[in-house]
Amino acid sequence: MCQLLGMNCNTPTDIVFSFEGFSKRGGLTDHHTDGFGIGFFENKGLRLFLDNHPSAQSPVAELVKNYPIKSENVIAHIRKASQGHTSLENTHPFQRELWGEYWLFAHNGHLQNFQPNFKYYQSVGNTDSERALCYLLDSLRQQFAHKPDPATLYAAVQAIVLEIREFGLFNMMLSNGDYLFTHTSTLLHYIVRQAPFGEAHLVDEDIAIDFNEVTTPNDRVAVIATLPLTDNETWQQLAQNEFAVFHHGEIVYRHTPQPAVYLSVEEGLAIARAVGTAC
Amino acid sequence: MCQLLGMNCNTPTDIVFSFEGFSKRGGLTDHHTDGFGIGFFENKGLRLFLDNHPSAQSPVAELVKNYPIKSENVIAHIRKASQGHTSLENTHPFQRELWGEYWLFAHNGHLQNFQPNFKYYQSVGNTDSERALCYLLDSLRQQFAHKPDPATLYAAVQAIVLEIREFGLFNMMLSNGDYLFTHTSTLLHYIVRQAPFGEAHLVDEDIAIDFNEVTTPNDRVAVIATLPLTDNETWQQLAQNEFAVFHHGEIVYRHTPQPAVYLSVEEGLAIARAVGTAC
Repeated sequence: MCQLLGMNCNTPTDIVFSFEGFSKRGGLTDHHTDGFGIGFFENKGLRLFLDNHPSAQSPVAELVKNYPIKSENVIAHIRKASQGHTSLENTHPFQRELWGEYWLFAHNGHLQNFQPNFKYYQSVGNTDSERALCYLLDSLRQQFAHKPDPATLYAAVQAIVLEIREFGLFNMMLSNGDYLFTHTSTLLHYIVRQAPFGEAHLVDEDIAIDFNEVTTPNDRVAVIATLPLTDNETWQQLAQNEFAVFHHGEIVYRHTPQPAVYLSVEEGLAIARAVGTAC
Repeated sequence: MCQLLGMNCNTPTDIVFSFEGFSKRGGLTDHHTDGFGIGFFENKGLRLFLDNHPSAQSPVAELVKNYPIKSENVIAHIRKASQGHTSLENTHPFQRELWGEYWLFAHNGHLQNFQPNFKYYQSVGNTDSERALCYLLDSLRQQFAHKPDPATLYAAVQAIVLEIREFGLFNMMLSNGDYLFTHTSTLLHYIVRQAPFGEAHLVDEDIAIDFNEVTTPNDRVAVIATLPLTDNETWQQLAQNEFAVFHHGEIVYRHTPQPAVYLSVEEGLAIARAVGTAC
């Protein structure tokens, strides 16, 4: 299974600490060795770093760790290939433009027989994931010539996500640089860091940070990841089939199916393995 | 004025030597200090590195110089902002998808009152250059639902380029990972390196390379740049208003207006300055 990492903040923030631990999972503390990618929004601009080397050894990952890019929205992905060969065009996150904005998307899961027709977008590679992004944006564009108001947008993205998840496992993150949309089929966890800030310690490496030293009292930062990245903070879990939208570091819209089901890490990984997943 | 660098080869080749000299022009040997970008095609995949720091000091440029990415098509750009503020969304090259392929584009020049309508693509930033890419791809897409044969494609791109250049200075490079299309309003030079290979020495730095040691006898590499990058090789100049298409390291299609006019470097730079250019 692949792993996802996202960040959504109310002020431009660097993701170096979280990425430090996350990138270790690409070949050192875990087996996600088929490349990685990370995209940073900076205002309307998007900077996307891709590499088909494992993130634990990649010079591109090394750059990202040493160059604190401040961003309000970040999506990163480390890949264990299940569909599509390991090549740059199949490396997440994927990027397209809609309504004069860049959209960034990463997925872990496995969509079966998902071969939609497109009007505006086409896949370059051959993953189910890139087809999912194309389908999402195509559907939005066919409904709205211009970007609708936030509430309409949330509901529209949710409706398309519900369609796509009928085809299989669909843990995903999508951002236009403003909102970060998530859907959880098995495992996604998140934490909202805000004042009073404390110290955090990575799971994957013996590194700690005191957020008091690098934040201001009004900062609010949501970090979303397949599995928690720190071992001394309380991460929240998103429920199976939950759709949640983050904005300015907090959840502004969510739909949690009732009764809410929270898989254990073992259950989540077992489901992924059973469907021959996943990226 | 900004500067452009392109490479088109018949075998994946690293551009480290050329980029070494080119990137010096971003802040050291020249004044192109408003950011830089470089995009590498690897099969169908595209890796685009952007930075709004000057290339001479950018950690991203440092990575590119130390990480020999092998590519058959590369486009790079160093920027001296004339239109649009210096921000990531205005940093060349620009990227979009058409017909299931990524397209990469960089421009130096200045298009006046160029505000076309788009059906399929929209600008994210506010440069004339990004609008030119959107217009190019929009026009291609409106004419062809699928990618046409090469001769039809060359002629179609050329026709759109002729339309755009009516609006002003349009030195540009465009690639889909297969072809590298160029248009010259003032200055573009190129060199085709093939066996027997020799030694090359940079203009901007005292660095030389013996291409015999890093090539095979069948390699053919075209390097295209605003100004020659080496001082001991013979660069060819593209004529004013010439349209040329490179494929596998050679020009496969060109239209040279007659009589062909070749500007001196001084004349080219003077024209750029006179129109308040340029990127």
